[in-house]
Amino acid sequence: MNVAIVGASGAVGQEFLRVLEQTHFPVDSLRLFGSARSAGRTFNFNGNDVSVEELTEQSDFSGIDFAFVSAGAGVSLKYAEHITRGGAVMIDNSSAFRMDRDVPLVVPEVNGPDALDAPRNIIANPNCTTIQMVVALNPVNSLSPIRRVHVSTYQAASGAGASAMDELVGQHASLARGEAPVVEKFAHQLAYNVIPHIDVFMDNGYTKEEMKMHMETKKIMHSPSLEVSATCVRVPVMRAHSEAIWVETEEELPIEAVTEAFRAAEGIEVIDDPAQKRYPMPLHAAGCDPVYVGRIRRDLANPKGITFWTVSDQIRKGAALNAVQIARYIIDHC
Amino acid sequence: MNVAIVGASGAVGQEFLRVLEQTHFPVDSLRLFGSARSAGRTFNFNGNDVSVEELTEQSDFSGIDFAFVSAGAGVSLKYAEHITRGGAVMIDNSSAFRMDRDVPLVVPEVNGPDALDAPRNIIANPNCTTIQMVVALNPVNSLSPIRRVHVSTYQAASGAGASAMDELVGQHASLARGEAPVVEKFAHQLAYNVIPHIDVFMDNGYTKEEMKMHMETKKIMHSPSLEVSATCVRVPVMRAHSEAIWVETEEELPIEAVTEAFRAAEGIEVIDDPAQKRYPMPLHAAGCDPVYVGRIRRDLANPKGITFWTVSDQIRKGAALNAVQIARYIIDHC
Repeated sequence: MNVAIVGASGAVGQEFLRVLEQTHFPVDSLRLFGSARSAGRTFNFNGNDVSVEELTEQSDFSGIDFAFVSAGAGVSLKYAEHITRGGAVMIDNSSAFRMDRDVPLVVPEVNGPDALDAPRNIIANPNCTTIQMVVALNPVNSLSPIRRVHVSTYQAASGAGASAMDELVGQHASLARGEAPVVEKFAHQLAYNVIPHIDVFMDNGYTKEEMKMHMETKKIMHSPSLEVSATCVRVPVMRAHSEAIWVETEEELPIEAVTEAFRAAEGIEVIDDPAQKRYPMPLHAAGCDPVYVGRIRRDLANPKGITFWTVSDQIRKGAALNAVQIARYIIDHC
Repeated sequence: MNVAIVGASGAVGQEFLRVLEQTHFPVDSLRLFGSARSAGRTFNFNGNDVSVEELTEQSDFSGIDFAFVSAGAGVSLKYAEHITRGGAVMIDNSSAFRMDRDVPLVVPEVNGPDALDAPRNIIANPNCTTIQMVVALNPVNSLSPIRRVHVSTYQAASGAGASAMDELVGQHASLARGEAPVVEKFAHQLAYNVIPHIDVFMDNGYTKEEMKMHMETKKIMHSPSLEVSATCVRVPVMRAHSEAIWVETEEELPIEAVTEAFRAAEGIEVIDDPAQKRYPMPLHAAGCDPVYVGRIRRDLANPKGITFWTVSDQIRKGAALNAVQIARYIIDHC
């Protein structure tokens, strides 16, 4: 396969390189694209140095099979037609096309077949918090349709990019020296704080991040009546998002059946042994592929409810890994 | 009033000294008690040095009007009868007596009158996460009875005591030097992590902290059918707990009426101006008295639901301040 990565020097772009190598994706040729600022940088892939080309309207995508794009919604909107014109399938990590009727929004474990019907040659990768949630919702939904979801998130700094991780470390260093921390990447100081504000606020009082979880979940799970209310919160963690989730299903489910369904599900690893202090935590999930699920128990406030806790590296499964899995699904099913 | 503080050198004990001073509590005499290790230490109160006496079965509590006790459930159980024998009202910050039928569990804004009927001369101060939640639930419950609550917490290190705050700072310092952090106060490293485990695990998969929120809320609000499902999570914050809360009421409530009720409620300060990036955060709540409420909005997954976000300093309103307010309520109403 001839592969391109657009946004190669960003946190997700770098993860694409690692995931393509680690999953032995069949790469015949690789081209890297980036901004003028990134152009000329070289990155190693399978032992070879590959230079970043500047992305312009003269960039040639003919012959490319898959273009993994993660350079923000503006770049995706501007270059989508250009990238796909020659037949490349664009797998887009931005929010630009996610709710577009002609663009499938895909998490392979949940709605893989949707990837096979992409009339614009664009497939959207969902929001990172949504990906890890729907991977966990899917086995429960298979036992009994889910009606409602309440979810609060504990989102890592890396969701705002590599420089946001640097800012968090820098804030701790400044505070340790008794100096005022630099605050640029987040609305407020993140060190020793939590911030209930990710992305911009909408008219209904929810943030755009929270509304992504609401809208994207319906589309991915083909459940227009599945309603999600989310509170998204940034926490001073480097990498991997955590989520406390309550679901209400149509039928009351035995907790053992739910745990069994999680254990059997593709992409999930259950860590649920409280007696041994074992449950998912972001510190242990960084750099790992699975969606970890634990703290599985009855919802004491709802006889048809269950509650659990998930953790996943939002740069792996929440972004690069999921996108590469989409490409792999297409290769395997076409 | 003749006042005693038991556990004077702990984080909550020290806060008792500050709160008694700052609220101009009518203190005629003050005695401090602690363990053998703390005995002899002196603390300043209203300009005078007061020495810590060792708490033993020979300690004399005769003449004491109010004993504020925060030295763990074991000490409370062992000394309760001794402390109250001479007529002192013991206001106990531990979990020892909270669910005792003859011991009122009091948050003055919610169920102040309960404090006036304490047959054992013991009044229990609720769990810190429960206090800030019921202060926020109460005005909503007055508009329409609350049936269910889903809550996830973001709890500060200081909930585990002053030494836990030191451990968190020390972990950051060790990590900055490239050294392995010391982990003693929590089950796992807290720096750059979140831990879904506070207090011990129960047979139903919930932690004791989560079950406190379930049980204590029913008792304080006189609502045996009000069901709470909580997920309690430790986050790397120094002081002040945050909570994402969803409530379902019997009747559908206009969001404006809910916001108005929060604004009018005693003990609450509404901070809800997303356009100006203003919402409650632990960084700004440390050392402050109110329960801050913000992010008030409809529950998109439940027509009879609303959701909001609260932050409060769990050593102030969550412990020392609430206990002193109980004493003040008794003085004002006896």
